[in-house]
Amino acid sequence: MNIVIASDSYKGSLSSLEAGEACKEGILRVMPDANVTVKPMADGGEGTVTALVDAVGGSWMQQTVHNPFGEKTDASYAVSADGKTAVMEMAEASGIHYSACGPQDVLHASTYGTGELILDALDLGVREFIIGIGGSATNDAGTGMLRALGASFRNQEGEELPEGGAALADLAAIELEGLDDRLKECRFRIACDVENPLTGPDGASAIYGPQKGAGEEEVAVLDRALKQFAEVAQKTLGMDLDRPAGAGAAGGLGAAFLGFLPSSLEKGAVIVADVTDLAESLQQADLVITGEGGINHQTVYGKTPIHVAKLAKEQRTDVPVIALCGCVEPGYETVFNAGIDAVFSTVDKAAELEELQEHAAENVARTAENIARLMKFC
Amino acid sequence: MNIVIASDSYKGSLSSLEAGEACKEGILRVMPDANVTVKPMADGGEGTVTALVDAVGGSWMQQTVHNPFGEKTDASYAVSADGKTAVMEMAEASGIHYSACGPQDVLHASTYGTGELILDALDLGVREFIIGIGGSATNDAGTGMLRALGASFRNQEGEELPEGGAALADLAAIELEGLDDRLKECRFRIACDVENPLTGPDGASAIYGPQKGAGEEEVAVLDRALKQFAEVAQKTLGMDLDRPAGAGAAGGLGAAFLGFLPSSLEKGAVIVADVTDLAESLQQADLVITGEGGINHQTVYGKTPIHVAKLAKEQRTDVPVIALCGCVEPGYETVFNAGIDAVFSTVDKAAELEELQEHAAENVARTAENIARLMKFC
Repeated sequence: MNIVIASDSYKGSLSSLEAGEACKEGILRVMPDANVTVKPMADGGEGTVTALVDAVGGSWMQQTVHNPFGEKTDASYAVSADGKTAVMEMAEASGIHYSACGPQDVLHASTYGTGELILDALDLGVREFIIGIGGSATNDAGTGMLRALGASFRNQEGEELPEGGAALADLAAIELEGLDDRLKECRFRIACDVENPLTGPDGASAIYGPQKGAGEEEVAVLDRALKQFAEVAQKTLGMDLDRPAGAGAAGGLGAAFLGFLPSSLEKGAVIVADVTDLAESLQQADLVITGEGGINHQTVYGKTPIHVAKLAKEQRTDVPVIALCGCVEPGYETVFNAGIDAVFSTVDKAAELEELQEHAAENVARTAENIARLMKFC
Repeated sequence: MNIVIASDSYKGSLSSLEAGEACKEGILRVMPDANVTVKPMADGGEGTVTALVDAVGGSWMQQTVHNPFGEKTDASYAVSADGKTAVMEMAEASGIHYSACGPQDVLHASTYGTGELILDALDLGVREFIIGIGGSATNDAGTGMLRALGASFRNQEGEELPEGGAALADLAAIELEGLDDRLKECRFRIACDVENPLTGPDGASAIYGPQKGAGEEEVAVLDRALKQFAEVAQKTLGMDLDRPAGAGAAGGLGAAFLGFLPSSLEKGAVIVADVTDLAESLQQADLVITGEGGINHQTVYGKTPIHVAKLAKEQRTDVPVIALCGCVEPGYETVFNAGIDAVFSTVDKAAELEELQEHAAENVARTAENIARLMKFC
């Protein structure tokens, strides 16, 4: 029997690999001869770098960079075993955990550190990038990152603008002459699960600004500033950066990648499945087990288990796809129309979250074991 | 597809019938054409009367009787739809919930009220009794019950002894002339899951006395008293009431049934399965689902799910038997050697017991639904 386990992480409990290995252990208790393949999965958010490193091997790098507010911080990313590909998360250098999320924070936060991380990888010879862009503190249209990579953003007087989104209201010219030459040899696969445009009522400032500290006034200020950025970018590049789906991701970082770097915005789960050759493994699968910390009414909107199920059914229409989770919530049933055949909670009893997190691996193993026991009747 | 659901109750959450019906609902969501039979189960303990009444129909009766300490209390029992069989629990009239569990309590507690309940049923024309004898406050060898039914227990001076176990130290003669004549026409099936003798280190006083309030001294007093009872009973009946397995159940109430009433001590689950014709339903079952509040290392020692599994496999060796529960604990795996094929917890997330109890029915239904979704691949 060929069994593929492709689980996301259980946040706070298990990495994707740990969840997959626990699942495998449970199955092997019942089916010692089964051919079990573990593929750590992720959706581009937290845990993506770990999942990819666990899946394909590689090493962790650490570099001192500037956080969104100009202070030094240590940020990590991973480089694949062959040294060609870097996997990073923008939140490592420019994430919201650095921010107090006040109005001043969102006006001035910068993605500069993310650019520094990219530079560091370029120095190592990396030319392929996979970058998750969730969890940003910033609303600067990625200008901080581009500046770190050599671009200049100037006002009417030809002066370099200060860092942050608010300053872009004064943007008059974008200069690209200084951009690092090596970027032309690169490919950036950006894990991006949102489709917001850069500005307007569905734009970066209006939708994600408030959770970063923007009040009504700051949202208006930032939205105007990003409009100004789009206008100057249009003149510079001859390209509309305002409307494309995903341009508004990570405070407009999506637009910076789309316009200034050789990039594609893709769903995180698609990138991870691609990098880990998940589809190929699924071709021979007699049973697929996926999972995530929680399965609920939002799961169908592109979470890992759904992507795994879709890919599995594309390979083999009749393969059973089972999802495990630490928390199954009302409305989860929508996953049944999206390729998942059954959902089981791994919780063993009435208990607080902390206690369950401690025993998460054994609970996943036990649940997988009992599913395998049932599947023996199939 | 023929599915038999034979679940015990989930204590504090669901009666056996409620658990079974929730399970059925979940299955029918996936298999609307399945032939699903719900048999409420119990093991002779708490919930047995409810399970039996739910299984075979009947009416609830209420009677004012004396509690273990001589105070008036209302106690319930059930009579089958045909009026021939009464189902009762000794704890209704003589249970430990009436006791403060101090040393004086266990010395004097009486089963008199249980005898009054039996009398009440006799008056209604009942001649078949099913009586669960778990959860007693008493250690009186059932003398209180027998006294209520007309027997006398006298000292050397020919005086009636006071109620309670301690008084039996002075027992000199048992008089049975006054015993209700109708008892000869009766059959008592006593649900008894323990095998303790009446006295000695494994006897009623030593093993169950302490949880009813007996200290070391009271255990010794009561054990001597029960030995005296056994001695006089031997003379009266020509029968050993000290050694039989189960004689020590419910503070010696087991011995009273065995010696003085036309009784058989049986495992509660056996009686319930018998009364509900479980074996017959299992003959055609393609899938059996059982369950109980908790599945753990003690489950194999005669709990309901094990009895259901045993009976199921006796009918059809290859039928899958699945157990659901609200709490699965380490060591539960022993059930796999006793006929249960898989165990699933119904808990949906980290939560306190009270919250889970509120949603127990939906959680059972959801779990059954997902099992049915898996079984569709079989």
